[in-house]
Amino acid sequence: MSESCCAVDVHTHVVPSSLPDPRADFGDIPWPSVTHTRPCHAEVIIRGKNYRSIEDGCWHVGRRVEQMTRMKVGVQVLSPMPELLSYWLAPEPARLLARHINETIADMVRAEPTRFHGLGMVPLQDISLAVNELEYLMRQLGLRGVEIATNINGVSLGDPSLDPFFAAAESLGATIFVHPLRPVGLDRLLGPASLEQVVAFPGETALCIASVITGGLLKRHPRLRLGFSHGGGSFAQVLSRLQHAWTLPTPMREAFEEPRATARRLFYDTLVYDHTTLKFLVDSFGLSQLMIGSDYPFAIMDTMPTERVAKLALSDAETAQLLYGNALRFLGLPSPDDRTARAP
Amino acid sequence: MSESCCAVDVHTHVVPSSLPDPRADFGDIPWPSVTHTRPCHAEVIIRGKNYRSIEDGCWHVGRRVEQMTRMKVGVQVLSPMPELLSYWLAPEPARLLARHINETIADMVRAEPTRFHGLGMVPLQDISLAVNELEYLMRQLGLRGVEIATNINGVSLGDPSLDPFFAAAESLGATIFVHPLRPVGLDRLLGPASLEQVVAFPGETALCIASVITGGLLKRHPRLRLGFSHGGGSFAQVLSRLQHAWTLPTPMREAFEEPRATARRLFYDTLVYDHTTLKFLVDSFGLSQLMIGSDYPFAIMDTMPTERVAKLALSDAETAQLLYGNALRFLGLPSPDDRTARAP
Repeated sequence: MSESCCAVDVHTHVVPSSLPDPRADFGDIPWPSVTHTRPCHAEVIIRGKNYRSIEDGCWHVGRRVEQMTRMKVGVQVLSPMPELLSYWLAPEPARLLARHINETIADMVRAEPTRFHGLGMVPLQDISLAVNELEYLMRQLGLRGVEIATNINGVSLGDPSLDPFFAAAESLGATIFVHPLRPVGLDRLLGPASLEQVVAFPGETALCIASVITGGLLKRHPRLRLGFSHGGGSFAQVLSRLQHAWTLPTPMREAFEEPRATARRLFYDTLVYDHTTLKFLVDSFGLSQLMIGSDYPFAIMDTMPTERVAKLALSDAETAQLLYGNALRFLGLPSPDDRTARAP
Repeated sequence: MSESCCAVDVHTHVVPSSLPDPRADFGDIPWPSVTHTRPCHAEVIIRGKNYRSIEDGCWHVGRRVEQMTRMKVGVQVLSPMPELLSYWLAPEPARLLARHINETIADMVRAEPTRFHGLGMVPLQDISLAVNELEYLMRQLGLRGVEIATNINGVSLGDPSLDPFFAAAESLGATIFVHPLRPVGLDRLLGPASLEQVVAFPGETALCIASVITGGLLKRHPRLRLGFSHGGGSFAQVLSRLQHAWTLPTPMREAFEEPRATARRLFYDTLVYDHTTLKFLVDSFGLSQLMIGSDYPFAIMDTMPTERVAKLALSDAETAQLLYGNALRFLGLPSPDDRTARAP
């Protein structure tokens, strides 16, 4: 069996095949619905518009497993399509939506427990509800943690107002996968609407990681396991500048811990689409912090996410780290190699 | 004579030792003034506050030449401290300020013509005044072109509304050095105020370069020579994602030319503070597009900007490209090597 059969893809999304519709109770809110347009295809409709056309890999366990095999991925980590995070809804409908999606993901994991791990979602517009839902999805549903956005209605993740949530995540051992959403800089884009995801997402993610570092989040919650999508966006290029500034006699030195050291305590997926950039991530963050990510099953996905790892020409042990070892650590799970090592 | 004696540093700033004060004519506007606080030191005051404490390298030709020698820099390209670009002033005071700064820079170049080239500034809040000032500063003052900001009061550089300026720049053969200013994402920063420059600048520059590519600026003005500060900010990491998206069957393919090919027609300075990131720039943009940049004489400057080039272990010819050949091409000047090559 080749190493790639064990690859753990931490960046894959789910859209349920149907969503409840509580709008009779809550009025005209931007609640998403899923409309099936033809076999194996659907549209996510929000406020009467097609937000995204999707394929059945979004919800169909059999289709996912078939495509994973083709992609040489052994295990997928399931997380909601980020737009579903819905921090802009009132807390109560947001909680309902989160619960439905969390149960959907838990059902998918139960259907193929050796092929899937699940990350759910929590209504972070209400920290207390978010903490309750986090406890529920981990203890009752057996999910590994949650996907959250790079900002909560404009609040950076390093902001102390979110600390009660991160305290709960730390204490529950929750895995936190961070994905860009509602990025800054939209008014600077020129061209097709999808430049939001393509051009604005990397900078959004970079600002988020910077806020984690300069806001001291890991100092307050040192055992948090935070992973960032898309290779941390464009953060690695911000890091060299931030690290340099931190070495100067400025207030930064007192305000937060060494940026490079903190950056090397965070996890990042490998979804950067070329060898040069992947190599840059390895050199910037270290081999121990990178995990396979594909963005399955969306149009922009990397269809062969393990291929670029092979081109890095690493040792077998290092390759295993990138393909699954780091991901299992991020998920709070033992590595199969650890088990082997512990055998008599 | 070592190669580094010929190094051309394209990223150095000027603040005049004094500024006229037209506020009697224009009322309470955010006009900058320079207050000398002690020998060799001054403060730039804007709206009654100290915007930045500066040293005499900002205006003093002798001090600059002395420090250049220590930095192994043969030639500096002078450009205004970016905050002076003042796109937020009404056109007429903005034109006055630009004229004073352009004449200051021209005077400095005249004082040491073998050590300095000059880039001025234009009031881009009024395109017609900007074109007039560009003609003046190039034809009358002998400057090589201008520094402009990554956005003009929020308008991206690729926006067609700026085309008359870029048409004039193309036709005059003006060099255009682009520097971040008023970046997006300020409300996401947590920590000292200087994170604006350290953390928000790279993403701002990345959005600007993306707008040049996706807005088709070089398609409309193919002979423009555009150079970007701080290694293009975090654009190289956006590029791999943009390039991937462009290869997919989406509207992007029709909307703009190949991102990687366009990115390799732009220039970038080397101000990225570490070997890993500089190597990433070389691999992303090509050796032919990089030029030394130091941010002299500000606190965040790279005091030995040529040192990292040596560590790239390039051939002599490649090193010469990075140290001065590319910069001279950016400035529209012949390379000394070209002259040698043309000699009988």
